[in-house]
Amino acid sequence: MRIANLDGRATLVVGSDGAEQGIDIADASGQFGPDIADIYSQFDSVTAWARDADLAGATRTDIDRSKLGAPSPAPRQVFAIGLNYDEHAAESGFAAPEGLPPVFTKYVSSFSGPDSTVVIPAGGNVDWETELVVIIGRTAREVDAETAWDHVAGLTAGQDISDRITQSRGPAPQFGLGKSFPGFSPQGPWLVTPDEFENRDDLELGCSIDGEQMQKGRTRDLIFPVAKLIAELSRNVTLYPGDVIFTGTPAGIGAGRKPPRFLADGEHLDSWISGIGKLHQTFVAAN
Amino acid sequence: MRIANLDGRATLVVGSDGAEQGIDIADASGQFGPDIADIYSQFDSVTAWARDADLAGATRTDIDRSKLGAPSPAPRQVFAIGLNYDEHAAESGFAAPEGLPPVFTKYVSSFSGPDSTVVIPAGGNVDWETELVVIIGRTAREVDAETAWDHVAGLTAGQDISDRITQSRGPAPQFGLGKSFPGFSPQGPWLVTPDEFENRDDLELGCSIDGEQMQKGRTRDLIFPVAKLIAELSRNVTLYPGDVIFTGTPAGIGAGRKPPRFLADGEHLDSWISGIGKLHQTFVAAN
Repeated sequence: MRIANLDGRATLVVGSDGAEQGIDIADASGQFGPDIADIYSQFDSVTAWARDADLAGATRTDIDRSKLGAPSPAPRQVFAIGLNYDEHAAESGFAAPEGLPPVFTKYVSSFSGPDSTVVIPAGGNVDWETELVVIIGRTAREVDAETAWDHVAGLTAGQDISDRITQSRGPAPQFGLGKSFPGFSPQGPWLVTPDEFENRDDLELGCSIDGEQMQKGRTRDLIFPVAKLIAELSRNVTLYPGDVIFTGTPAGIGAGRKPPRFLADGEHLDSWISGIGKLHQTFVAAN
Repeated sequence: MRIANLDGRATLVVGSDGAEQGIDIADASGQFGPDIADIYSQFDSVTAWARDADLAGATRTDIDRSKLGAPSPAPRQVFAIGLNYDEHAAESGFAAPEGLPPVFTKYVSSFSGPDSTVVIPAGGNVDWETELVVIIGRTAREVDAETAWDHVAGLTAGQDISDRITQSRGPAPQFGLGKSFPGFSPQGPWLVTPDEFENRDDLELGCSIDGEQMQKGRTRDLIFPVAKLIAELSRNVTLYPGDVIFTGTPAGIGAGRKPPRFLADGEHLDSWISGIGKLHQTFVAAN
């Protein structure tokens, strides 16, 4: 099952290969939504409905990508994981962490849908971090890694866009602010439930700038894969339906290049995860 | 005006000195609430109603403190500020930051009301940080310090309880997790609007353990006072009604003592801010 945030409304996605269409879940079910943010607290029921519903007569509409928003636009909590791939930790100048990697937040005012224009803050060095994003579907508190996937609503693609100037300012990493300028957390194009993947723990992800490949990795190389991340996080906090986890980025960021490279006015960033879809960002300089 | 979260319902607080009573805002107004979380998006209207309403005939009930919750229990964003008093930065081993102090989050699953029992995580060194907490009442994006107070719904008292073991683990500060175990963010007893204070920028705050004073400071010593904090944060992110800002703690934490002192099974922590009220936490060891 795939669910999109189409203009704020929970929308079932059908079809494939750029010819996807949407079925409005509230209209078709008469019971769930219409607000996408309300879907996660009843995700098991939505899944059961989608599995059994006869949708032959349901209205299908073409999906206007400019109206897609982040699949979970109003999470109670947002977790972002640093240094979760060996080669990325190395390019960032750190040893791979022995325990749980650094956990910070991306403030929700930075969320957007998959296709967007992003303003480069004045004086900023704006970098890319393609990431698998997990959306929680069932409350998780002190769960084991063995059962952690049962708490996942689905996966989506995300960019953890980062201003390296802001994040490095001061006596401790300023990750939350440096990664939360407006538009710095594009996600989408939609949520894909875990059962849709041949191997939910081995997805290819990457990005390119104006056609030049910058990152290409596989989620099998996550130091803390999805299930272990959820288990570890749930030892400290309670994860709620709709909560969002940015799982970390593979090697290939701009700050790790010699010389460093950052996003410039007019450049296009294309990001993708196999089995999920693509993000498209255009960067413009601040006035 | 003072507003309490009484069993989840927005409640106007009247009376003083431990004889406070509550007036249910939904019952008395017929238009706002009942959910306390819905109050902040219409805070100007609530304020205007409370100012003009004839409450002579309204039902008043005694306030059972055990039913008080955090004044803003479902914020979209939570900001917590580190190293925001000179003497506290020094006791923490840091120079006072020149720019904006470190900003991290306290995850909302750690929120509680003012009176609670807190479990000390196994192996943890649990410390206290009494803090003035700001709750946003109007959206703020790129606001000036001169007008920033206009975006504040009110102030409350908070404890930024912190496990120093978890927060120090790994290659970067793990503030978000170390400060977000269950019950680590007690707040209350209620929100007090800024007009209630003789000087909203100079409140006394402190805490004691079993009667022994641990912290005593004044918010006039904040390196980034409330208005400047809001202005600076709003340059990166958009602040929404209901958002919560823990503004940082004055000197006197346990980790800064020689020898260090942490909270132990059976100890009682009493915290207070002048003009707002008190918090009471009892600590118990994990099983």
